[in-house]
Amino acid sequence: MNKGALALLVHGGSENWSPERWKGRFDHVCEGRRVWLLPDAAFDPAEIHYAAVWKPTPGELAGFPNLRVIFNLGAGVDALMADSTLPKVPLVRVAVGDLTGRMTEYVVLHVLMHHRQELYLRACQREKCWEPRSQWPASAISVGIMGLGTLGSDAAEVLRRIGFRVSGWSRSPRQTEGIECFHGNAQLDAFLEQTNILVCLLPLTPDTRHILNRKLFAKLNRNSPMGAPVLINAGRGGLQDETDILGCLDDGTLGAASLDVFATEPLPADSPFWMHRNVVLTPHNAADTDPHEISKYVARQIERFEAGGPLENVVDPARGY
Amino acid sequence: MNKGALALLVHGGSENWSPERWKGRFDHVCEGRRVWLLPDAAFDPAEIHYAAVWKPTPGELAGFPNLRVIFNLGAGVDALMADSTLPKVPLVRVAVGDLTGRMTEYVVLHVLMHHRQELYLRACQREKCWEPRSQWPASAISVGIMGLGTLGSDAAEVLRRIGFRVSGWSRSPRQTEGIECFHGNAQLDAFLEQTNILVCLLPLTPDTRHILNRKLFAKLNRNSPMGAPVLINAGRGGLQDETDILGCLDDGTLGAASLDVFATEPLPADSPFWMHRNVVLTPHNAADTDPHEISKYVARQIERFEAGGPLENVVDPARGY
Repeated sequence: MNKGALALLVHGGSENWSPERWKGRFDHVCEGRRVWLLPDAAFDPAEIHYAAVWKPTPGELAGFPNLRVIFNLGAGVDALMADSTLPKVPLVRVAVGDLTGRMTEYVVLHVLMHHRQELYLRACQREKCWEPRSQWPASAISVGIMGLGTLGSDAAEVLRRIGFRVSGWSRSPRQTEGIECFHGNAQLDAFLEQTNILVCLLPLTPDTRHILNRKLFAKLNRNSPMGAPVLINAGRGGLQDETDILGCLDDGTLGAASLDVFATEPLPADSPFWMHRNVVLTPHNAADTDPHEISKYVARQIERFEAGGPLENVVDPARGY
Repeated sequence: MNKGALALLVHGGSENWSPERWKGRFDHVCEGRRVWLLPDAAFDPAEIHYAAVWKPTPGELAGFPNLRVIFNLGAGVDALMADSTLPKVPLVRVAVGDLTGRMTEYVVLHVLMHHRQELYLRACQREKCWEPRSQWPASAISVGIMGLGTLGSDAAEVLRRIGFRVSGWSRSPRQTEGIECFHGNAQLDAFLEQTNILVCLLPLTPDTRHILNRKLFAKLNRNSPMGAPVLINAGRGGLQDETDILGCLDDGTLGAASLDVFATEPLPADSPFWMHRNVVLTPHNAADTDPHEISKYVARQIERFEAGGPLENVVDPARGY
């Protein structure tokens, strides 16, 4: 056999993402190919043609002289791009339907929670208080999605079906049926000025770091029945200025926020986000994709690559995603 | 002018449903027709051809000798059907897109909350605990909807788009694309045995009273990654045996419940539902429709009726809805 071996470098993640589980999945889908779960004393670095990684330590990938492709086991590659020792081989990010579906679940859930006044209703329940407030229809709310790639477009489609007005903003021009599309810095203000619920699914790059800041929040639209606008960030913690978010929640620039990601994860116990009454916090699990689906996706790409075919979803180093 | 007058009999409801607001809406849409908000000393009962009602007191409608049509301002007519003095004229229930959309928002929100382990995640936030649990995909969960009319069919379509397996149960046979349809008593067990999240949107009739009881819950499917099944009732409080729900939540027959309706509303302060950690409670506001949409719907039906056309969504007294 002359199939290049695959090295698995997996750190952190939930129980479902344990290194051993990844090893089992890849053994199952990589027929006739050696799969090494690192660190392992027995393997020969020269044998490794492919690496599948989740939060590798910087420099960890530099020791493979015959590496051909790196597969990131998630959608966000910001941590890898920040590693200056990263071998100059194609870097592929995950784009499987399962991940898209899970992100759409998260986005739809959190948009509906804020739209349907769940924070108020849970407080009522705790206080044994039966006081229905007037409820506006979805058509009164404009949801603006930053990032109109695979994830953003799918969430937009479902939100539109539910009845929300939906718009999107992306780096380069996009066209999506029924969605008002804005792009580039020149159209960012126009996008924000009509957005009541802002959903951020942007990749983290030098251009987008701390894009979610007070200056941006102040431009959001306050003229809906919901009042103060809402932020939902399921992208990366580095996209948000956390001091600004807290300040804007406290002075009413923002009405509420759903945050799945943070500058430091796990979120430290002394973070004010934990106990903030207008924050809905989740532990970076918006799109905790099935390892089985991802391992099949990687195995399929390797087979195609070895047969002379193209790789899909290769990161553009110039854009950073 | 010889347009028959409309009497408004409106009791209770939220701020958005105040009698004065209804009067304003109907005055706006009923051009050239007298609209009386009862009680009003000035009106002549013989002048009333139409009544638009929300929770009228029993007997209140019997005093109009020339009544031609009764319009109920909501979807559920169980309270009216229980009034033996109700004049024998057509009773029309509301079926407007706005109401359908709002119920779909509620159903999708509550299905997603249970699917995405929101009760667990909110408890984690309160305890400052960053512990993501494994999350299964929507495709692992079967949502079963009791009641496949306008409301159930619309919610089913959105849930299916999100990725859930969706089935439905109704009194008489239905066919909906992509939804496994069961009907009648003979197929109820088969429907329950494959349902992980049960959504009840049935009308309340003598046949459906207390249909949500321990015997039914015990037949639900427990073999999903979610474990114990979940109940969502946005129909009527009379559909549920509340002692059974509490007992089943406590012994694990049910994992959790979202309840929008109760046997007694407002829910009494001493009800155990308020503080139950596995209950998500809302104050009968799942589909708190816009009075503007409903008044337009009623005015349009009256115009068509006076022009000799048919009424829509007339209640069948034999079925009770």
